[in-house]
Amino acid sequence: MSEKVYDVAIIGAGPAGLTSALYCGRADLSTIVFGNIFESQIAKAGQVENYPGIESIPGIDLIEKFDEQVKKYDVNLIPSNITRIKRGELFTLYTDEGEYRSKSVIIATGAKYRELHIPGEKEFVYKGVSYCSICDGTLYKGKKVALVGHGDQAAKSALYLAGLCSEVIALTEKKDLEAPMYEEQMRASKRIKVTGNAKVVAIEGKEFVERIRYVLDKQEERTEEVEGVFIEGGIPNTLLAGELGIDLDAKGNIKVNRPEQTTNIEGVFAAGDVTSGIHQISKAVGEGASAAINAMVYIKKKGIPK
Amino acid sequence: MSEKVYDVAIIGAGPAGLTSALYCGRADLSTIVFGNIFESQIAKAGQVENYPGIESIPGIDLIEKFDEQVKKYDVNLIPSNITRIKRGELFTLYTDEGEYRSKSVIIATGAKYRELHIPGEKEFVYKGVSYCSICDGTLYKGKKVALVGHGDQAAKSALYLAGLCSEVIALTEKKDLEAPMYEEQMRASKRIKVTGNAKVVAIEGKEFVERIRYVLDKQEERTEEVEGVFIEGGIPNTLLAGELGIDLDAKGNIKVNRPEQTTNIEGVFAAGDVTSGIHQISKAVGEGASAAINAMVYIKKKGIPK
Repeated sequence: MSEKVYDVAIIGAGPAGLTSALYCGRADLSTIVFGNIFESQIAKAGQVENYPGIESIPGIDLIEKFDEQVKKYDVNLIPSNITRIKRGELFTLYTDEGEYRSKSVIIATGAKYRELHIPGEKEFVYKGVSYCSICDGTLYKGKKVALVGHGDQAAKSALYLAGLCSEVIALTEKKDLEAPMYEEQMRASKRIKVTGNAKVVAIEGKEFVERIRYVLDKQEERTEEVEGVFIEGGIPNTLLAGELGIDLDAKGNIKVNRPEQTTNIEGVFAAGDVTSGIHQISKAVGEGASAAINAMVYIKKKGIPK
Repeated sequence: MSEKVYDVAIIGAGPAGLTSALYCGRADLSTIVFGNIFESQIAKAGQVENYPGIESIPGIDLIEKFDEQVKKYDVNLIPSNITRIKRGELFTLYTDEGEYRSKSVIIATGAKYRELHIPGEKEFVYKGVSYCSICDGTLYKGKKVALVGHGDQAAKSALYLAGLCSEVIALTEKKDLEAPMYEEQMRASKRIKVTGNAKVVAIEGKEFVERIRYVLDKQEERTEEVEGVFIEGGIPNTLLAGELGIDLDAKGNIKVNRPEQTTNIEGVFAAGDVTSGIHQISKAVGEGASAAINAMVYIKKKGIPK
């Protein structure tokens, strides 16, 4: 293990993590970032048109811009994943290649799309299949789409899509959408049709999505002609947070105090899709910046103050 | 008054307001934005180097990019200020030119720099005088600077600058910095020197700032040789919020519930520098996006649902 003690260790090299890194670098904090930009969700995002200031850019190009900007500063970027993390006087972070120590940690591990693992899903990504209604809804204006999932987030997405699309076929394996807060609004919408006990089994089409197949009540197979399929239910990557004893909310997100982005563990901050709220680049960069500034304030308490 | 009822009225055309507008436009909400981009703080910000994805850009160019991006969507941009706002079944917004109605309101009116109105201040903006330590601190690495102000924000800025600068002369008209939470850290720093009862009277230099003059205990005039002067104490623009009965926090910011950006008044959201937290473009865009999405969910309850 190297004797060096970093001020800040950032876990995750997506928009939140790299924004934290940018702010830490500019503050002259000794900073290490773990993660591979090519593994971040944004790298798989297709064309991004809702990041303010950049009209239209492939996700992979945008995250490379973030990366280049961070490299202007004295920040150590390690393209490995953390395998284990330990809390003590300092934090110890383990990768397959070595161990690192830090005074504070920013968790920006993001979320995983919920994949259905059904025929047609992978094939039609960018061609009708989307994991982000807020990002891609605009492309389906006036069209009929399907939404797969349940819970508050799925309900919000259904409402969002209903503002754009001619019809939203909401399919859930549960009895209903399980979003009591939005039930009234959903029912009032003439464009949303919720079908419970519906297990999606295939997405089909030629060049683009043309229909979705599902099994109703475990017996009857049905088909809906749709031009888009939105799959809801991103899963926050909180494995390392669990090791540190960090509190999660009912949906499995890291619980943070905003706008400081602190967690229940002193010295640990979290930002971006691993916390509650919209999964958007803009939100991730805002939280990444806040986490960095508050980590800075925190670490001044530790070690030799400048 | 036009009969048209907008889904969302956005007050403010800075990064938070225009990001809200972008998200509302993409969601096909009928949207109106009030404000002049050239009056936003970012327009006066000089070179921006901490907005992720854009390495270096004049503030005015960045906000113009935001503006152009919004104009791709069906959003009504009104370069006037709201003079009055009224809450009823709908919100009514008044400008010198007319009245407008909306189902929801996003307040993104930002903050004003606290100007000292002393000789040399205006003259040396971008030449040693700064209103944002997080933005400009990096430019003063290894240099001796002054910080003018008091309160938690000033203390955090002093700690931030102490990580970069050789010496931070903190001057306040109050007895002390009035930041008890950070007192210990401030005292432990060898680089921060706090002087109370110090009224700054002039900033001097040739081409760039060379010194700051202040009067100690209302009698003795003193001088410190510094290369930078950071003036703390931005004032949130909450006049319209007051008219709506919106709760403010102890520092005068609009109180919001995060990450939804709701306020105590149903249908009113707030984002950016008018709320608590760091005054940074990244944080403003994140909150602007969240406010828009949650306004969307809210307005689906009002009027005829789609």
